[in-house]
Amino acid sequence: MSSSTNVEIINFGDELLVGIRANEHLEYLGAELARYGLPVRRASVICDANEEIRASFNNAMARSDLIITTGGLGPTSDDLTRETIAEVLGEELVHDSTVEAAIRNYFQAIDRPMAEHHRKQCYVFKGGEVLQNKKGTAPGLYFRSQGKTVVLLPGPTQELRPMFIEEVIPRLRRDDYLRASVAFIQLRTCGCGESSIESRIKPIVDAEPDLQVAYCAHYGIVDIRLSSRTGLLDYDDLERISQAVARECGDDFFGYGGGSLAEVVHKRLRDTNGTLAVAESCTGGMLSDAFTNISGASKTFIGGIVCYSNEVKVSQVNVPESILMQHGAVSSECAIAMATGVAEGLSAHHGLSVTGFAGPEGGNKNNPVGTIHIGYHSPAGVWSKTVRYTGGRLDVKARAVHAALDWMRRELMQSSASK
Amino acid sequence: MSSSTNVEIINFGDELLVGIRANEHLEYLGAELARYGLPVRRASVICDANEEIRASFNNAMARSDLIITTGGLGPTSDDLTRETIAEVLGEELVHDSTVEAAIRNYFQAIDRPMAEHHRKQCYVFKGGEVLQNKKGTAPGLYFRSQGKTVVLLPGPTQELRPMFIEEVIPRLRRDDYLRASVAFIQLRTCGCGESSIESRIKPIVDAEPDLQVAYCAHYGIVDIRLSSRTGLLDYDDLERISQAVARECGDDFFGYGGGSLAEVVHKRLRDTNGTLAVAESCTGGMLSDAFTNISGASKTFIGGIVCYSNEVKVSQVNVPESILMQHGAVSSECAIAMATGVAEGLSAHHGLSVTGFAGPEGGNKNNPVGTIHIGYHSPAGVWSKTVRYTGGRLDVKARAVHAALDWMRRELMQSSASK
Repeated sequence: MSSSTNVEIINFGDELLVGIRANEHLEYLGAELARYGLPVRRASVICDANEEIRASFNNAMARSDLIITTGGLGPTSDDLTRETIAEVLGEELVHDSTVEAAIRNYFQAIDRPMAEHHRKQCYVFKGGEVLQNKKGTAPGLYFRSQGKTVVLLPGPTQELRPMFIEEVIPRLRRDDYLRASVAFIQLRTCGCGESSIESRIKPIVDAEPDLQVAYCAHYGIVDIRLSSRTGLLDYDDLERISQAVARECGDDFFGYGGGSLAEVVHKRLRDTNGTLAVAESCTGGMLSDAFTNISGASKTFIGGIVCYSNEVKVSQVNVPESILMQHGAVSSECAIAMATGVAEGLSAHHGLSVTGFAGPEGGNKNNPVGTIHIGYHSPAGVWSKTVRYTGGRLDVKARAVHAALDWMRRELMQSSASK
Repeated sequence: MSSSTNVEIINFGDELLVGIRANEHLEYLGAELARYGLPVRRASVICDANEEIRASFNNAMARSDLIITTGGLGPTSDDLTRETIAEVLGEELVHDSTVEAAIRNYFQAIDRPMAEHHRKQCYVFKGGEVLQNKKGTAPGLYFRSQGKTVVLLPGPTQELRPMFIEEVIPRLRRDDYLRASVAFIQLRTCGCGESSIESRIKPIVDAEPDLQVAYCAHYGIVDIRLSSRTGLLDYDDLERISQAVARECGDDFFGYGGGSLAEVVHKRLRDTNGTLAVAESCTGGMLSDAFTNISGASKTFIGGIVCYSNEVKVSQVNVPESILMQHGAVSSECAIAMATGVAEGLSAHHGLSVTGFAGPEGGNKNNPVGTIHIGYHSPAGVWSKTVRYTGGRLDVKARAVHAALDWMRRELMQSSASK
């Protein structure tokens, strides 16, 4: 990481430490800041106890230049961030009547009275700035103290995200924290393991002494992130290297940045005016969901059938009962029938299907738990493919969804290449 | 948090800091450790840089008793955890031929040769224990150093989780880290805001000076976690208090622990031999997915139709074209037709439907972006309900799924009460 600004994020909240909630704030803020050339160097998750907030914030002040905290600005008694940080820094909190008016307006709009315990949210750092909260009551706070910039953001996701974009980013730009250039380039691959990828691209990497490469594997996808160790490589250099890496990865490479496999499939379909319907058994809606997470998905994605029971496979997807009797619902024959059945039934050009045993129950001798059959129907024909995964139910579901999307991506790529 | 053991987790990996991947390890390990009375007190996410690994680990050694790290044990060159921690602690790494044999076996089983760069994974802490990795190549490491217990776990989820349960938990028990008693009780509620819940249960909370209460709100669900501040309250006390809190929350309370709304609905249906089919437009498979995440879901969940296009609403869910023309696809009339249509079409007792504008595109004067219509069909009749949310596309989808599940839960509760 080549940025000279030391950025640190502290997420406050017991719920993040005892497994009640995933820390999606770090993922979100890390991605946004990295886009602007400000990679986060350290992050901590701290429980809602006065002495821990104190210790973690003191550490952060000693080693970082820009400190962003999330959580603990709410009205309840376990919300201690504002008060504790003011105490640590020796800064004064003052009542802000504009904030109180905004909170009163918020409650008026939803036709409820403002409860007394919201009053503590009206206190702000003297000399600091208030970040408007359009989606809730807790204002964010932005201030300088002891030569450092401190930003306090509320915990609820739907309040934090718009506040970060609309209120924090412009101030970071004003205060010269944001770089114009991109700090790293990410390539996404599917179908090849992490260490094989490293071996394949080793000659390219070895030729660039200042190149830093990081890998991240998840559910069959391997991301490769290229950055400059000391800043000697500029954006053009990184782009040149990433193109060489992409070429070396061949068909396993599917895109730059954070775009999903479903987005790649959606774009290819859109470019050829193709439409898609899906039939899912063990993935239970996750494959459909991957498409409908894309804004504008309706241009290519018509719909899906979650045919969890055999009856629904027959009645809604037209799987012949004879296939279920002879081969069973977890078979490549059934996957093929599902792909064709859903494409024809929903009048789509393409049909994609998944059937398998996600576990922990189910499975048989030929198809142990983790066996997944994928079917793909296109105007050119219909094919099936079998994959097998270890892991828990949710792991197997996620891997099966990636496998189906990746296969369809490759088939679409081949068919457009052969034209 | 009343535990006297200071537990700290350090997650290594650039990808966790720049928004490429959510830190699901912290969520998982935090939940597992909390179940055994070992709440995590601090957690950090650290980039894969030698000096940062060094600094974070030194800090952890100074303040914590049990340190668990994840990531950085792989074969690639950015995997530095094992070597850097050995250096910091002045501990020796020795080659382990059993580990090398296990890695060779792993590659033999998948019919690939063992690449040379896997050799560094064969080095273990002298005097430490090796944690077997059944799902990959990197062994975990468990050792004592300077009076502290250190556990190094591999980064891939499917390797980490079984290793933690099968290899780490038994050793923590042997070394007297695990408590027999439960450290906290969590109640889950839906339908009431965080601060209203706090007001409602205030009299109960105020009567218990040693009670610690934490709240966590996500997508319409508010979790309440009760624990003993200094350990004065035992499990029976916490159970008594949690029952009082549950009574006070009334119908908004839906369960203890981590069970989802879909699980509550599934169990109620199972108890009455009821079956369910769902029809989704804007939630695009997420509602089906919530059910199929439950092992054994097929006992009640028959299937679902993701009717993203109007054509599919008509052809697969039997929505009359006249409704689409007169009221549009985003209307309570359409939600009702979808709920009945999918229940009848898939031969289920109950039908649940969601249609709306998840955004950022779409919406009209009567139904702005964020408007969601839910339909519920049961043997007793069919009803609709309209809700409205702010936030991004994925937020609105997640809230709509919770709203639909919560409404069906309440209806099932009422119908069983009236019998």
